[in-house]
Amino acid sequence: MGGLVQSGCMRGRFITFEGIEGCGKSVQHRLLADHLQASGVRVLLTREPGGTPLGEALRSLVLDPAYAPTPLAELLVLEAARTQLVATVIAPALERGEWVLSDRFADASSAYQGVARRLGLATVAMLNATACGSIWPDRTLVLDLDVETALARARARPTTTASNRRFEDEALEFHRAVAAGYRELAASEPERVRMVDAHGTPAEVFARVREAVEDLL
Amino acid sequence: MGGLVQSGCMRGRFITFEGIEGCGKSVQHRLLADHLQASGVRVLLTREPGGTPLGEALRSLVLDPAYAPTPLAELLVLEAARTQLVATVIAPALERGEWVLSDRFADASSAYQGVARRLGLATVAMLNATACGSIWPDRTLVLDLDVETALARARARPTTTASNRRFEDEALEFHRAVAAGYRELAASEPERVRMVDAHGTPAEVFARVREAVEDLL
Repeated sequence: MGGLVQSGCMRGRFITFEGIEGCGKSVQHRLLADHLQASGVRVLLTREPGGTPLGEALRSLVLDPAYAPTPLAELLVLEAARTQLVATVIAPALERGEWVLSDRFADASSAYQGVARRLGLATVAMLNATACGSIWPDRTLVLDLDVETALARARARPTTTASNRRFEDEALEFHRAVAAGYRELAASEPERVRMVDAHGTPAEVFARVREAVEDLL
Repeated sequence: MGGLVQSGCMRGRFITFEGIEGCGKSVQHRLLADHLQASGVRVLLTREPGGTPLGEALRSLVLDPAYAPTPLAELLVLEAARTQLVATVIAPALERGEWVLSDRFADASSAYQGVARRLGLATVAMLNATACGSIWPDRTLVLDLDVETALARARARPTTTASNRRFEDEALEFHRAVAAGYRELAASEPERVRMVDAHGTPAEVFARVREAVEDLL
């Protein structure tokens, strides 16, 4: 068109999966990636905390009951991992036109540290804004499973060990508060944050996931 | 007096040592502790980043060139270590009436991340306030040694290894910016932040250190 060279490179979409431990988000994260890739979309899968060498090292510390961080120390460790992931992985991928699917992101800090650990949503929002800058999810899917079922599943996972079970070890009340935090976020940002019923087979849940992102495709 | 029971426990003093790598602050930190203990003062020695199991683990990550944190990730890791140290070590010790001497504290983030890494003093001040709450040094001594001498000394230390030399590896310009950052802090808060000439023998420097805290005794 005219004299302009078109870049051909649109910014990719950023989709995050959220929910309590054991809600099935990691499976749905992978299923959506497969589905998008089959449709020819270039996809980058990542997770929080983690996704970078620094972030994975911080993840190990924050999941390990041995380090007993205060709620605020926990939040700051997560924000450090987050900003490293945003700056070195997510932002460059979106720039390249890839879709980024993250198993957890900034909303997890609102639900876990802001609500369940009672640091307050304002403190978390301030630190999320510092850590993320202009990078923010286009869509966030909260997989909604009853707390007892999810937690029993999370605690029984073979990958849950003595050195990474700090969150699985929290009382039922804590996980109920996290779930309430996610519902609060969905209520306050209904366009971006969608609750997805996570009961049923992976295929049944995936049909709902696909529906919840269809308008972005 | 009257019917009141006196607690007999005054809040202790909080003194921090700052300066570029190799300025000799760790030696002076120890000399002041010895001096205070000899005068019957109960002293707690700590350091940043570190001073707690979480903080020491974070210290290893932040000093290791392998993890290459962004400036903001570096700052957030340091703030996580800081709040853990404040909440679990410094605040309880001050409450017990002990004097706390820290080899580096929050001003280091102003000089290193705020000035030398160019994140700006406002961002660092906001995060320091979040991490430290009401705990703030009563006196801060900046050991002032010329950058070439200090850096040569730091790089030659047997404890400086391939996995903890990320700051020692920075260019001379970086360390000059840190030194300028500290001078800026001392100029803006002359009552709390004192520049101490760090040239001379440890005993000569210590005479200046002692003078710079004498009014607190």
